Amino acid sequence: MSQNAVTEPESTSDAAAIIPMPLDAETAVHRMADRARAASRVLARADRNWKDRGLDAIVRGLDAGRKFIISANAKDLRREREAGTAAPLLDRLRLDDARIDGLIAALRELGGLPDPVGTVLRGQTLPNGLRLRQIHVPMGVVGAIYEARPNVTVDIAGLALKSGNAVLLRGGSAAAESNKALLSVIRDALGSVGLPEDAVQSIDAYGREGATALMQARGKVDVLIPRGGRSLIQAVVTSASVPVIETGEGNVHIYLDASASIEMAVPILLNAKTQRPSVCNAVETLLVHPDAVAAPAVLAALHKAGVRLHADSRATALAGTTPTIPATEADWETEYMDLDLAVAVVDDLDAAIKHIRRYTTGHTEAILTNDLAHSERFIAEVDSAAVIVNASTRFTDGGQLGLGAEIGISTQKMHARGPMGLRELTTTKWIVQGDGHVRS
Amino acid sequence: MSQNAVTEPESTSDAAAIIPMPLDAETAVHRMADRARAASRVLARADRNWKDRGLDAIVRGLDAGRKFIISANAKDLRREREAGTAAPLLDRLRLDDARIDGLIAALRELGGLPDPVGTVLRGQTLPNGLRLRQIHVPMGVVGAIYEARPNVTVDIAGLALKSGNAVLLRGGSAAAESNKALLSVIRDALGSVGLPEDAVQSIDAYGREGATALMQARGKVDVLIPRGGRSLIQAVVTSASVPVIETGEGNVHIYLDASASIEMAVPILLNAKTQRPSVCNAVETLLVHPDAVAAPAVLAALHKAGVRLHADSRATALAGTTPTIPATEADWETEYMDLDLAVAVVDDLDAAIKHIRRYTTGHTEAILTNDLAHSERFIAEVDSAAVIVNASTRFTDGGQLGLGAEIGISTQKMHARGPMGLRELTTTKWIVQGDGHVRS
Repeated sequence: MSQNAVTEPESTSDAAAIIPMPLDAETAVHRMADRARAASRVLARADRNWKDRGLDAIVRGLDAGRKFIISANAKDLRREREAGTAAPLLDRLRLDDARIDGLIAALRELGGLPDPVGTVLRGQTLPNGLRLRQIHVPMGVVGAIYEARPNVTVDIAGLALKSGNAVLLRGGSAAAESNKALLSVIRDALGSVGLPEDAVQSIDAYGREGATALMQARGKVDVLIPRGGRSLIQAVVTSASVPVIETGEGNVHIYLDASASIEMAVPILLNAKTQRPSVCNAVETLLVHPDAVAAPAVLAALHKAGVRLHADSRATALAGTTPTIPATEADWETEYMDLDLAVAVVDDLDAAIKHIRRYTTGHTEAILTNDLAHSERFIAEVDSAAVIVNASTRFTDGGQLGLGAEIGISTQKMHARGPMGLRELTTTKWIVQGDGHVRS
Repeated sequence: MSQNAVTEPESTSDAAAIIPMPLDAETAVHRMADRARAASRVLARADRNWKDRGLDAIVRGLDAGRKFIISANAKDLRREREAGTAAPLLDRLRLDDARIDGLIAALRELGGLPDPVGTVLRGQTLPNGLRLRQIHVPMGVVGAIYEARPNVTVDIAGLALKSGNAVLLRGGSAAAESNKALLSVIRDALGSVGLPEDAVQSIDAYGREGATALMQARGKVDVLIPRGGRSLIQAVVTSASVPVIETGEGNVHIYLDASASIEMAVPILLNAKTQRPSVCNAVETLLVHPDAVAAPAVLAALHKAGVRLHADSRATALAGTTPTIPATEADWETEYMDLDLAVAVVDDLDAAIKHIRRYTTGHTEAILTNDLAHSERFIAEVDSAAVIVNASTRFTDGGQLGLGAEIGISTQKMHARGPMGLRELTTTKWIVQGDGHVRS
């Protein structure tokens, strides 16, 4: 399969322009990774001012290129509409002036964030006089695999640039024209301030074989970040030999303890479920103590807000006149991402923790309580990226937690856990300085 | 393959004792992982004092069990000697009183180290009053795959206990009797202080199928640490779906700049090459500036110390009367782990960095120089876990760098880079505390 000859896409860099021969997808992706490595060395030494000038240039390019970008996007939209693509997917594919404004605002915010590169993580002078410091340095070459959402192209390019990494992008084929237009804007912008254009490259021209080559390019690509739904992430985790940072899935729980007040519980549940039901930090299961005073009011308020309540028999009884749908085993496992909520009555805190351990994806869980011992036990015993007491689960977000822009929310334990900001796109390096020191 | 019925090994825990039915390797390993998970929850909440009492109990058990351990080890040694196993492998397999003393000393040192669990990595109160902290918590269940070195069994069990992790061990089959004896000592010790015995389990009874099941137990095992030679690590990296931390390989370079003095260069090279040639932080290639004043003296001293010099033509000329062996391409790629050193003359610092980029495994590289600009460029442009100026490469070691005991030296960029101590066996958890906070 990987032997099919594909013509290498035209590149604006001189090095690429002199190699117009046809290449198989694997060779082409490896060559792009090598050029990305060379670019990453320039980026790794670029100071914050230079990288921020690059972000500014991308902002100017997006602003000046609105017509060009939107007309490229229109081609994708037309093709996909004719192919019968569903409306929500078409919506995610769409770029308009408002969305370009959003991308520009995000890049400007990124420009305002501190540079993680060079930050000293720890350091000391040893008894023998050896000077040590461990500093943050860029990963090098990052691979990103995502779905047909062209805004992700700009997001990831910006985060990679600010953290000093070169990036190889693989977007969805449905967004091919949009991504091509955005790539040319981004690469021209980088070139205009003297940064290497090969810091941002797309492997889209090499199709599935290109994606496979990217996932297998161990040694050439330092880390792979899949961004999208469950099936995309599982496919990458299974196929990749390059280390992967898993992001995303959130089967988020809230435990309503007996002592939580109505005044606190109702606004938090409404916020956690209805503010933006389609995101990973929205609550999906409510666990209720049998004596939770706030329960009937919470369920009534959720129902009034349009939430379908999938309740077990005891929760149905607690709901009183509020209508519910009988819950099945599948409800406890489902990340609805919609105005649906599974509701179960659990005997006590222990039963709540047991339920969470069984069904959690390790993203976010919250307890609403006025019992100090219960809050302490919940914090200690629930093993998720974020554990929240008396606040909405919607706070598990890089921006909300003060990390600035995020590239995703890691649900794995290695490298990064929870919202991943710029620092999570770096690795570290030990610098050891002596005056002729030898080990005794 | 995985359907072969194997009898589950006897366990001292009650839960296991009542399930004496035969199990296939995969089911057995999964059940052990589930028991490890339960044990990990106790360990995660165990305070430092309790865990240190566990380490003390293991020390007492090893001391009291010397005869038992050494006689089990003698069975392994006899079997392997009869099977014609090579002398260096037999030496690594051997346990005697001195080695047990070494294990005891290492466990005592571990007891003196601070507990990483609960350390606050960062924290703040947000403008809206939400209190945040990101703390270190244990990984949970760690898998370790290693060769027939029974000391590793004790090392890893100790590191896992102190960092609050349960561990599933897969040692080499040549050390089966030794590991069985050590396991029973360790588990009895844990039990004697009320810690869960299932915090340390061996999957050795399930052979290769058990190892495969361990590597594929994504979700049940949080991280896998292979410890051993290149082929073991590559096999694990290729087969595992559980996240792996790669350790080990060190094709370590020293660049001898023109300005480095003889007084500094000779002792550093002798230390880096001859103090312990078989370890990963020993130097393997020396790159020499054409005008390096120290070069002839360095090469003569190395030769006198018994080092075979694999030199390119220019290095042979620099060596003068010191005998050399002509270097081939393979020499630049080889981690000798013996009294051999590849030597090349490079035109300048740029050529040295270019050579390092091509052949490094990303472990450790050093520059010997009195030129400040050169040292700064070397630090900035060489992308390895440790970059050293004017000191021996032998300092890349958890103990030497002040991290305490180490579980290995990571040569990957994700999660941990360089020596991995107790902190690198933890992940993090965000704790968010509010008073009814909702997202606006």
